[in-house]
Amino acid sequence: MFFTGNSKLNVPCERFNVVYRVFGNENDAYAKAKDICLEQTVEFPGELVPKGVIADHIVGKIEAFEAYNDDSYKVVISYAVDCGADELTQLLNVIFGNISIKPGIRVEELELSEGILKNFKGPRFGKEGLRKYLGVEKRSLLFTALKPMGLTNEELAELAYKFAVGGIDIIKDDHGLSNQKFSPYEERVRLCSAAVEKANKETGNKSIYVPNITAPYREVMQRAKMAKELGAGGLLIAPGLTGLDAMREVAEDDTIALPIFSHPAFQGSYVLGKNGISHQVLFGQIPRLAGADATIYPNFGGRFSFSIEECRRIAESSNSPMGQLKSIFPCPAGGMSLESIPESLKVYGNDVIFLVGGGLFRQGPDIIENSKYFKGLVEATIK
Amino acid sequence: MFFTGNSKLNVPCERFNVVYRVFGNENDAYAKAKDICLEQTVEFPGELVPKGVIADHIVGKIEAFEAYNDDSYKVVISYAVDCGADELTQLLNVIFGNISIKPGIRVEELELSEGILKNFKGPRFGKEGLRKYLGVEKRSLLFTALKPMGLTNEELAELAYKFAVGGIDIIKDDHGLSNQKFSPYEERVRLCSAAVEKANKETGNKSIYVPNITAPYREVMQRAKMAKELGAGGLLIAPGLTGLDAMREVAEDDTIALPIFSHPAFQGSYVLGKNGISHQVLFGQIPRLAGADATIYPNFGGRFSFSIEECRRIAESSNSPMGQLKSIFPCPAGGMSLESIPESLKVYGNDVIFLVGGGLFRQGPDIIENSKYFKGLVEATIK
Repeated sequence: MFFTGNSKLNVPCERFNVVYRVFGNENDAYAKAKDICLEQTVEFPGELVPKGVIADHIVGKIEAFEAYNDDSYKVVISYAVDCGADELTQLLNVIFGNISIKPGIRVEELELSEGILKNFKGPRFGKEGLRKYLGVEKRSLLFTALKPMGLTNEELAELAYKFAVGGIDIIKDDHGLSNQKFSPYEERVRLCSAAVEKANKETGNKSIYVPNITAPYREVMQRAKMAKELGAGGLLIAPGLTGLDAMREVAEDDTIALPIFSHPAFQGSYVLGKNGISHQVLFGQIPRLAGADATIYPNFGGRFSFSIEECRRIAESSNSPMGQLKSIFPCPAGGMSLESIPESLKVYGNDVIFLVGGGLFRQGPDIIENSKYFKGLVEATIK
Repeated sequence: MFFTGNSKLNVPCERFNVVYRVFGNENDAYAKAKDICLEQTVEFPGELVPKGVIADHIVGKIEAFEAYNDDSYKVVISYAVDCGADELTQLLNVIFGNISIKPGIRVEELELSEGILKNFKGPRFGKEGLRKYLGVEKRSLLFTALKPMGLTNEELAELAYKFAVGGIDIIKDDHGLSNQKFSPYEERVRLCSAAVEKANKETGNKSIYVPNITAPYREVMQRAKMAKELGAGGLLIAPGLTGLDAMREVAEDDTIALPIFSHPAFQGSYVLGKNGISHQVLFGQIPRLAGADATIYPNFGGRFSFSIEECRRIAESSNSPMGQLKSIFPCPAGGMSLESIPESLKVYGNDVIFLVGGGLFRQGPDIIENSKYFKGLVEATIK
């Protein structure tokens, strides 16, 4: 045949698992499962795969196959850790690269082994670290956004000042603020960082300003470093736009060392519908692996479509054991109103960051008062 | 109220259009259309948007609204060019950032204005340039992949040599080959480049080896530069994994100056189902904007699910007018068999690159003969 079947893969090799939900009847689902094993590795006709190491270890293996229900099956497939090349990009490729294009397959959960997890620093702060950094022991953290797009940087800074005086812990750029001519990045970061700093001196609290570093490839690191130099207290990034590994790179850079807030822009298509990636993997496990300290996603009951159960799972996977990786904060957002906070607290408990944007303007004409009201709502839940 | 409504946006401002398909009855679809205008720009309660420049120019505008059919509407929305910040990342964010998370909205087509297109160099070679570069005037180009994953680099190089001797124009890494311990990148690129070079000397033809530079953030440019130094003839990248702007950065770098082949891994969720991005935008307009010279996607009739019509539209949008941006090659792939080539030629004409991977092994036991057979098939179509 074509090959000797030689391979330099060391065997026996460590493997990791991916849990897929595969739609179809039992026969179809099993055929799809076998196909995933080939598609995600050798991408080669099954009958031509060289016998030996490649057939036995490189090709994915079905480790479990059982019904979720009538029309979908839980399929656990293991892959050799070395296929992932110790890289986030290639790991994601093995998990879901080509099969993202095949209907009826969804990544439900990742069971990553030590050999993979050891390659990732994960969140620098994590839940505990962020609480210490902000000096907030028990209550939920308060998060808001500078908006609407189109305001001058001076107006955005004035808003930032008022939010900070009102006691909001984390004040981020709206994720649509980039480096527009009408709101240039460097000037905005300078003004907003100074405004929050001024408020902190007056109140004695610690609020942080978090600029958006979602940017072209060449500029992501530059903007992160500039933010650090200009006194920002954290960084917002949308990995759906920059690539997930850009977030990891920023998070793991010791010269930056700021908390990272992951934004879901451009990622929604993965979770809507039967195909794709589950909420808990896309907004829980993956951002955690890629170094986010907090993961922003649309809350149930807001202007998006996530269910309570989907949101609960994101929160759980932000917190469940994952090797040495720290737990991170779920940040429900997306049209959250202040009225919805008590209900959300029942779902998440206090270990949550509430991102309220527009809702904080709706409350009344005074931003400082609205912010204080928001803070009062979450403080009231602490004994 | 909260703001003066000042804005440094210069008005009147140039605008660009996005055509969305919005699902629902007329009332629902119109409500969604109005919501898109806010969500993708100010992300702010409509009633609180400051009057003046922000309400009149920053907020998206519905330019057209008409039925596609009973359950979906064609909605054309215009945005101020300056909202896109002259950046691919922010442009994509305006087009589909947050609404990627809302059900029933699909990006159908981009109508980008000169003010946007002038910021992009686009494909360096394009269709014409790639034909000249490879010295192939009329026939379809032949493309294959080194596989299966797990082979040694020596075996991959031997395969590359045989494909080149057999007359394949473009020989790429399988997209799962990264920098695995069992197939380290630098060694692979060195061996495969040399193998193809050797074949070229023997045959007098020009085949190129195209390594996969899909890699962590920090390494994409390094691998591209290393490929250039080691004699590779093009670059494969999966922008769904690296971020689209990484591809643009590589494509526009004058020190690299190699043809770019865009791979669809991890992007499939955008095109499956009602939500997301149309085939022609995701695999036609966007890679072209981001500098790809050729766009790989699964052909109809293969092991994926694209229809003839979807494939035809990708090919059309690779070629339709788009400012100064060159036309690019459609590369149907994904389980293509040699038998399917005549039918595909009817759909695409000769201006196509056929990517046949596994199918080239299925044909018979001799790789060189199989490659020659493949070449004969497409040469037979030229008068």
